Amino acid sequence: MSAADTVSAAPIAAVILAAGKGTRMKSDLHKVLHPIAGRPMLLHLLDSLGRANVTQRVVVVGASGEQVEAAVAGQGVAIAWQQEQLGTAHAALQAEPALAAFDGIVLVCFGDTPLLAAETVARLTARLAAPDAPAVAVLGFRPRDPAAYGRILADADGTIEKMVEYKDATTEERAVTLCNSGVTAVHSRDLWRLLHRVGNANAAGEYYLPDIVMLALAEGGRAVCVETGEDEVAGVNSRAELAAVEAGWQARRRDEAMAAGVTLLAPDTVWFAHDTVIGWDVSIGQNVVFGPGVTVADGVTIHAFCHIEGAQVASGAEIGPYARLRPGAVMEAGAKIGNFVEMKKAVLGAGAKANHLAYLGDAEIGAGANIGAGTITCNYDGFRKSRTRIGAGAFVGSNSALVAPVTIGDGAIVGAGSVITADVPADALALARGRQEQRPGWAARFRDMMRAKKGSGA
Amino acid sequence: MSAADTVSAAPIAAVILAAGKGTRMKSDLHKVLHPIAGRPMLLHLLDSLGRANVTQRVVVVGASGEQVEAAVAGQGVAIAWQQEQLGTAHAALQAEPALAAFDGIVLVCFGDTPLLAAETVARLTARLAAPDAPAVAVLGFRPRDPAAYGRILADADGTIEKMVEYKDATTEERAVTLCNSGVTAVHSRDLWRLLHRVGNANAAGEYYLPDIVMLALAEGGRAVCVETGEDEVAGVNSRAELAAVEAGWQARRRDEAMAAGVTLLAPDTVWFAHDTVIGWDVSIGQNVVFGPGVTVADGVTIHAFCHIEGAQVASGAEIGPYARLRPGAVMEAGAKIGNFVEMKKAVLGAGAKANHLAYLGDAEIGAGANIGAGTITCNYDGFRKSRTRIGAGAFVGSNSALVAPVTIGDGAIVGAGSVITADVPADALALARGRQEQRPGWAARFRDMMRAKKGSGA
Amino acid sequence: MSAADTVSAAPIAAVILAAGKGTRMKSDLHKVLHPIAGRPMLLHLLDSLGRANVTQRVVVVGASGEQVEAAVAGQGVAIAWQQEQLGTAHAALQAEPALAAFDGIVLVCFGDTPLLAAETVARLTARLAAPDAPAVAVLGFRPRDPAAYGRILADADGTIEKMVEYKDATTEERAVTLCNSGVTAVHSRDLWRLLHRVGNANAAGEYYLPDIVMLALAEGGRAVCVETGEDEVAGVNSRAELAAVEAGWQARRRDEAMAAGVTLLAPDTVWFAHDTVIGWDVSIGQNVVFGPGVTVADGVTIHAFCHIEGAQVASGAEIGPYARLRPGAVMEAGAKIGNFVEMKKAVLGAGAKANHLAYLGDAEIGAGANIGAGTITCNYDGFRKSRTRIGAGAFVGSNSALVAPVTIGDGAIVGAGSVITADVPADALALARGRQEQRPGWAARFRDMMRAKKGSGA
Repeated sequence: MSAADTVSAAPIAAVILAAGKGTRMKSDLHKVLHPIAGRPMLLHLLDSLGRANVTQRVVVVGASGEQVEAAVAGQGVAIAWQQEQLGTAHAALQAEPALAAFDGIVLVCFGDTPLLAAETVARLTARLAAPDAPAVAVLGFRPRDPAAYGRILADADGTIEKMVEYKDATTEERAVTLCNSGVTAVHSRDLWRLLHRVGNANAAGEYYLPDIVMLALAEGGRAVCVETGEDEVAGVNSRAELAAVEAGWQARRRDEAMAAGVTLLAPDTVWFAHDTVIGWDVSIGQNVVFGPGVTVADGVTIHAFCHIEGAQVASGAEIGPYARLRPGAVMEAGAKIGNFVEMKKAVLGAGAKANHLAYLGDAEIGAGANIGAGTITCNYDGFRKSRTRIGAGAFVGSNSALVAPVTIGDGAIVGAGSVITADVPADALALARGRQEQRPGWAARFRDMMRAKKGSGA
Repeated sequence: MSAADTVSAAPIAAVILAAGKGTRMKSDLHKVLHPIAGRPMLLHLLDSLGRANVTQRVVVVGASGEQVEAAVAGQGVAIAWQQEQLGTAHAALQAEPALAAFDGIVLVCFGDTPLLAAETVARLTARLAAPDAPAVAVLGFRPRDPAAYGRILADADGTIEKMVEYKDATTEERAVTLCNSGVTAVHSRDLWRLLHRVGNANAAGEYYLPDIVMLALAEGGRAVCVETGEDEVAGVNSRAELAAVEAGWQARRRDEAMAAGVTLLAPDTVWFAHDTVIGWDVSIGQNVVFGPGVTVADGVTIHAFCHIEGAQVASGAEIGPYARLRPGAVMEAGAKIGNFVEMKKAVLGAGAKANHLAYLGDAEIGAGANIGAGTITCNYDGFRKSRTRIGAGAFVGSNSALVAPVTIGDGAIVGAGSVITADVPADALALARGRQEQRPGWAARFRDMMRAKKGSGA
Repeated sequence: MSAADTVSAAPIAAVILAAGKGTRMKSDLHKVLHPIAGRPMLLHLLDSLGRANVTQRVVVVGASGEQVEAAVAGQGVAIAWQQEQLGTAHAALQAEPALAAFDGIVLVCFGDTPLLAAETVARLTARLAAPDAPAVAVLGFRPRDPAAYGRILADADGTIEKMVEYKDATTEERAVTLCNSGVTAVHSRDLWRLLHRVGNANAAGEYYLPDIVMLALAEGGRAVCVETGEDEVAGVNSRAELAAVEAGWQARRRDEAMAAGVTLLAPDTVWFAHDTVIGWDVSIGQNVVFGPGVTVADGVTIHAFCHIEGAQVASGAEIGPYARLRPGAVMEAGAKIGNFVEMKKAVLGAGAKANHLAYLGDAEIGAGANIGAGTITCNYDGFRKSRTRIGAGAFVGSNSALVAPVTIGDGAIVGAGSVITADVPADALALARGRQEQRPGWAARFRDMMRAKKGSGA
């Protein structure tokens, strides 16, 4: 989605607060790095900000901040450290040095509120770009259960008259359903001044970000509220909330997929990643998991119990049940991967098949080839990964081991149970297995002996 | 279920409307061919009609109608084409030539309303078979959310006073909760006349089927409403609705299974097909998918993650986890199929076992045989499928490849890792593998060499 | 959980009623033996009673009682037989002989109400241990739908004024939301006398347990109600109720896991057993099933589609997707088990890996060893199970069969596709496979022949 059409001309920066300890997560992993749809929460947010034309991003971190620093390394994101946890206004202020030279709109948002949409960011920041812009734009929402959220008292067109913490609110004010998400846009010419003016004369002794709204009003400025849906501003403070945000994300993604012409036999049991791309008339069975990096073309059938990550699947391909495609798996048109088959860094040519119990790693398999049940590409010798090449129309018999590097020529046949260590020329037959030897009556004698042993208690 | 006891003596025909474009499905497959419980919607409906003693069936099709024609070929179903989409009354009229000689009750129903029950069809058509029968019987329902459905104004015994489209209804009429499903029964002596009288003087310029009710009343005829549940008349216009109808079907089927003495450890994760038959005291674990054609006898245990289609499973058998039974799989009493095992066109004799990582295709396996881990029946040579026969009490060692056609005699033993290409006599031992050869110290030298290479950056 | 701190000093016995026929279960298995979270219902209850310091336990059984007798054999549980089903009071009376010498508090509870908590038992029985204890303490609950439950009329501190069956209750009494669970505690000095006084002058001609409350009040005694949540007293009379109780149990267990620092990517698709232990910062993917006896240490990653039972998993290990750990599987720190791999009675050393399509049974695998794809430990010869030992740092090539008993030395290498029948010394290379043989042009000739046959219709 491009939100460019609603974006303001003024440059936009974002201050992302991520300094909370996240104690309720009970994790050694920083809260904002826990994944939603296969991607750390913080990266969801950075992605949305990018699509909303936010050009400068400062993440304010505290405990375990080095994890966050590592996660965003090389992405042009500045890190600001909050040494003491003195409240959200204090946290936002830590970004001031990084943005000292910035002149434009600053969005303050939260690393643990990962589903903020680019369109919403654009809508919120656009309010500050208008000719007679207000001083502050606050993102409000109307939760199913307003509980103890701070309330926003605004008129019909969003002009804020008052913002009030729940504990300070009158009964009448508590009846207001519009709540403060905390996400706030302020022009840089106002933001730092207002933040410095915030006091900590409250029970917790903390500096609260929402106070800048009342300070702006007191200065004679104007503040407005922009509304969005509750799902978008759901915060994550525990693993249960993480699961709830994931579930919400998945539910929306499933609906989108179905609306776009994908059959989900049991929608609740299909899990998409943040970047999954699925074509028209794709049918997806029960219990299919997509990891990141998957593209599935039109007319593909994915049976139950598949696990697909980092794979490209061309039109008309058929997958599963119980197929696992790992990164680098490429299925060309009409190819088939069947049950208990694993593919990794491997190309399966058009119409080629590997229907049963196989491992195809570091391999190129030509069009129309048939890979027998139990075939293993032996791609690793403990030190090196090597490649297997199987020609077009080749037939690899069941239970074969192909010791890479090795090439099976076009149209060649490998006999069942062979261990192939040397290249097989095109159109040749290769066999590499022991000769069959029989011992008549041996089995009967063995059974008698074993039963006798059991009988004697030996 | 036989609905014969409530069925009328007059012959019954059905006109099934399936000419809609199904645009919201976003599919190249005709809407009525999308499956519910593993069977195309239209076939669910045809099946119910058959069980309600409907003897003549006409499907009215439009775009992609040839798909429908192909799907019902050979089933004695007539196809009528609606060239232009001029409304449901116009669609129904296209069936007139096919039913020109028919004298009896005609049911008009919808191909995208697949769960209409035989019992309901019988109940509805029976109203027209009574001595002082009404002219029209309409199937009504009371939806949770009546929304914009047309309303039926009827007295306590179902006599219809008025039917009104939502947009034409007064506030009082909109408060009525009885809605029109569209499913309608009319005697052939009235139906065509009424349909020809329907006009298209409305906003859409379409000929609407429900208009025949008011026309019948205007003629001095009587119309009655028969009620049914909302689930039964749920229509499918999108993939989300397809998923919802599937979910509803599955929920009812799970309840039926539990009521009949089947344990479902996690009911929401078991998916039945339209014709699944499950015995008493069967236990089904989490995430089990049944495709069409499965019969499971009493006392069978099916563990988690199984995928079972076209299989016969005798009493006391044990399946899974992660077992896949494909069409033609037959498990005799007390047989066991374990994890990562696939069976296809194969019989596993009483008490026989294949517990791990095997492919059994085109095979007959005798009672009490033991199929080792990793065993593969090599049933395909690229051109022909051939059969493997394994005798009673035989023991096939692990990782063996049995190259069909081949027979392992009763009580024979195949040594692990063998590639069996010739028949093995009863009670014999067969070995077909390489002799073990050792190279002392080789591994240590290899490691040193590889590490040296890495160290030198080679 | 220890409930010791709230427990009374008087000894406690329990009479567990399990004589109902359980007809609605439609099962040959006794109702109280159907499992919840992998353990028979009755054992859940016995476990809770044990944790509440109940020292004597009598199970009253009827039809199929021998199944119950067998299930609790050796656990110090007495069995009393109710020959005729004459009601709950009559059933409880059958325990009198077994408890003739018992002097203390008797709890009467139900074998088909498996989730009664130890803490609740302690709370209920403690009421009878107080200095001026009442004669009877009844466990009440407030169901979402009070339906036809018997009502308890009690004052604010729980003193019961009246108990009334729904059918005998006035409209006012039916409006009371406090209902009788049936679970009742009475001192042994009162219980038997009261039970003997219960009459059967009612429509069903049965002796009802709750009647003892009104009898106690009539004697001038006092009765109190202790409240608990509805989930805890949910009874199981059908497979649907069994599934509902299981679902409730699982939902609570998932919440506990998340609160304790476990990530569940899709909580609804993870099933725990009654005794599953999971560490901090464990991530569990979609569709993971735990059977009994599993302990998972901190920092373990369990991918989708795993089935884990009787296994010990050390910190940092990685499992799945599609991994099956069976009883006796032990993964040491940082070990990896990948897709389509089964482990049973096997130890996988620290950092060792078996990533693909393998069966590891009755095996010890040293630290850092690498088990290639398709490796099978051939642990069974039809009569005996034998062990495979693989040394630290060994490398077992793909598709190898290790015929136990056999030892692969530390640092040894087994070539791909080998059938190893003799021990391999440390640091040696072992090969046991056929020599590769090629037949140039054979495949092309074979294809021509087969196509000619098809062409000729042969």
